[in-house]
Amino acid sequence: MSAPARIHPVILCGGSGTRLWPVSRKARPKPFLPLVGSRTLFEAAQDRVGDCESFAAPIIVAGAQHCELIEAQARGQHRLVIEPAAKNTAPAIALAAALLPAEAVMLVCPSDHHIADETAFVAAALAAASLAREDWLVSFGIAPDHPETGYGYLRRGEPLPGGYRIARFVEKPDLATAQSYLATGEYSWNGGIFAFRAGHFLDELARHRPDMARLVGEAVAGGREEGTRFHPAAEPFAAIEGDSVDYAVMENTDRAAMVPADMGWSDIGNWAALADALAAEPGLADPDRNVARGPADLDSCRGVLALSDGPRVSVVGLEDICVVVCEGEVLVTTRAGAQRVGKLPGAVNQEPAR
Amino acid sequence: MSAPARIHPVILCGGSGTRLWPVSRKARPKPFLPLVGSRTLFEAAQDRVGDCESFAAPIIVAGAQHCELIEAQARGQHRLVIEPAAKNTAPAIALAAALLPAEAVMLVCPSDHHIADETAFVAAALAAASLAREDWLVSFGIAPDHPETGYGYLRRGEPLPGGYRIARFVEKPDLATAQSYLATGEYSWNGGIFAFRAGHFLDELARHRPDMARLVGEAVAGGREEGTRFHPAAEPFAAIEGDSVDYAVMENTDRAAMVPADMGWSDIGNWAALADALAAEPGLADPDRNVARGPADLDSCRGVLALSDGPRVSVVGLEDICVVVCEGEVLVTTRAGAQRVGKLPGAVNQEPAR
Repeated sequence: MSAPARIHPVILCGGSGTRLWPVSRKARPKPFLPLVGSRTLFEAAQDRVGDCESFAAPIIVAGAQHCELIEAQARGQHRLVIEPAAKNTAPAIALAAALLPAEAVMLVCPSDHHIADETAFVAAALAAASLAREDWLVSFGIAPDHPETGYGYLRRGEPLPGGYRIARFVEKPDLATAQSYLATGEYSWNGGIFAFRAGHFLDELARHRPDMARLVGEAVAGGREEGTRFHPAAEPFAAIEGDSVDYAVMENTDRAAMVPADMGWSDIGNWAALADALAAEPGLADPDRNVARGPADLDSCRGVLALSDGPRVSVVGLEDICVVVCEGEVLVTTRAGAQRVGKLPGAVNQEPAR
Repeated sequence: MSAPARIHPVILCGGSGTRLWPVSRKARPKPFLPLVGSRTLFEAAQDRVGDCESFAAPIIVAGAQHCELIEAQARGQHRLVIEPAAKNTAPAIALAAALLPAEAVMLVCPSDHHIADETAFVAAALAAASLAREDWLVSFGIAPDHPETGYGYLRRGEPLPGGYRIARFVEKPDLATAQSYLATGEYSWNGGIFAFRAGHFLDELARHRPDMARLVGEAVAGGREEGTRFHPAAEPFAAIEGDSVDYAVMENTDRAAMVPADMGWSDIGNWAALADALAAEPGLADPDRNVARGPADLDSCRGVLALSDGPRVSVVGLEDICVVVCEGEVLVTTRAGAQRVGKLPGAVNQEPAR
């Protein structure tokens, strides 16, 4: 029996660069920053699918404003698909699907998440690919470790080989609901990582979003190759009504499946989440759960994250806050306040991305 | 009846520049900073005794390292006495006393305190001078508004014209004791402001600290005039065993008196005290008691002091903290932590003063 064909990673790049302001900026959003460890999140996303036995060279889908960052941080062979406009995830994934053979299994990966356990990631990817070959549309179901209210949840249904049918998609729940989900053990976080057979995905898209599927087809047919870059035709793509892959396809298909994944995942959606991810890294936190990157003196502090690109940060007597100093901006926030950072004047009124 | 002779202000300058680090530095300590309002504390100290009808030109006593700052911030005619070494307040005051006529009434004023009500200050000064002319050694007894554990206290005794005998000096009390002092109404803070007849002070010093009195006399006799500057002889001054005026004289004399003074006084001894003084200034604090100096966005904050010399400070969700950005240093401290700021590596390991 021959080995299964290699998986085609599809890495989605984007982000507005406001929730981790002032480190992330519109011109330099989260994927392109070394937030955990020495690699950027985008570099780590490529490395996770870097094993040539299991994975083909990735397709990277991104806006034009990030091409230079992507090519500077590319780990090797790749194809770069440039979205003519930001239309959310369903059209971005469809562009990649249309450029792949119908039988290819694609693994859709956000580029701005952190995954501590890369071995567990690859194991889940192989399980997901196996289901995708059987024409399941597969989502990674992240094992929840706290009652998070900022994520969507998947409820598992009947077992499949290596996974489960998805019985139900749940929007971001309130805290009591999230706590009950955690208690039942039947719910996972919807991590935004997917495996599809390319042709199957396009078929399902055509069924549930026929206009989107048609316009993506036209954008690819009218597109233009330029070295490793592919430019879909702008006009049909601009006419698309943007939507997420969850809304456009996953919640409508009767072939939705999930593979469980317990892999130290975080979307690093705000400073509190990054503080957690850093505190979980071996050897980074002190015994009082403080993490310092850059010059910092923490006196009588617990659970403080201090990040600085130069100026010394001295903190006295505080608990569970983040202090971030970057390029002439100083941010001090509680964990709860971290969710509001993207609305601060400094984050909102940035210079636009190139 | 002729008007009483004018009072001779004696302004003491000094300070190590660590407790309000990073704004205060060894080379630029607290008196020389515009911490409250647009004037520096030293400028305000001069202005409080600026009325020529009541006050003569001041004698300023300071270390050589601060001469340039003093002359840059001097408000007019003055005499500058340069301490050859830092020997605490008793020798510094004795130098000034020895340069004044024996009958002159001197008003000893620290240069690093804030006094919101300058009219009340002058009224207390006139009352104190009146007692000093009758050979009382007079301390300002500051009306306490909270059970402060960082100050010494004076207990009032029998009434005198415009003041009281001091029945007892108390070292910094614990909180329960401070609370009981506040409840009795018989205790005041020892504010470090004094009125003495110069000759009487020197007599009392000679009685209680004869070596100090003799060495100060030799330092003045061997001193050297240089324009408005007076340099006492270094050798005898260096031989003095330094001491505070409270320990050397006030706690030993049987002529200790106090005048009550309710004048919005603060020693601005740390960032929490400065936050209080700023919040009490008209129009500075917002309805949530936040005070910002320099660019700041405070979101869901209460009682936050944000000071910056340039970088924007964004604070989310915090209460009763101070965020200070100055010359490449960032300090974040709770109110309680403010007492430890002087021990931080940044504050301790400064470049020495010139």
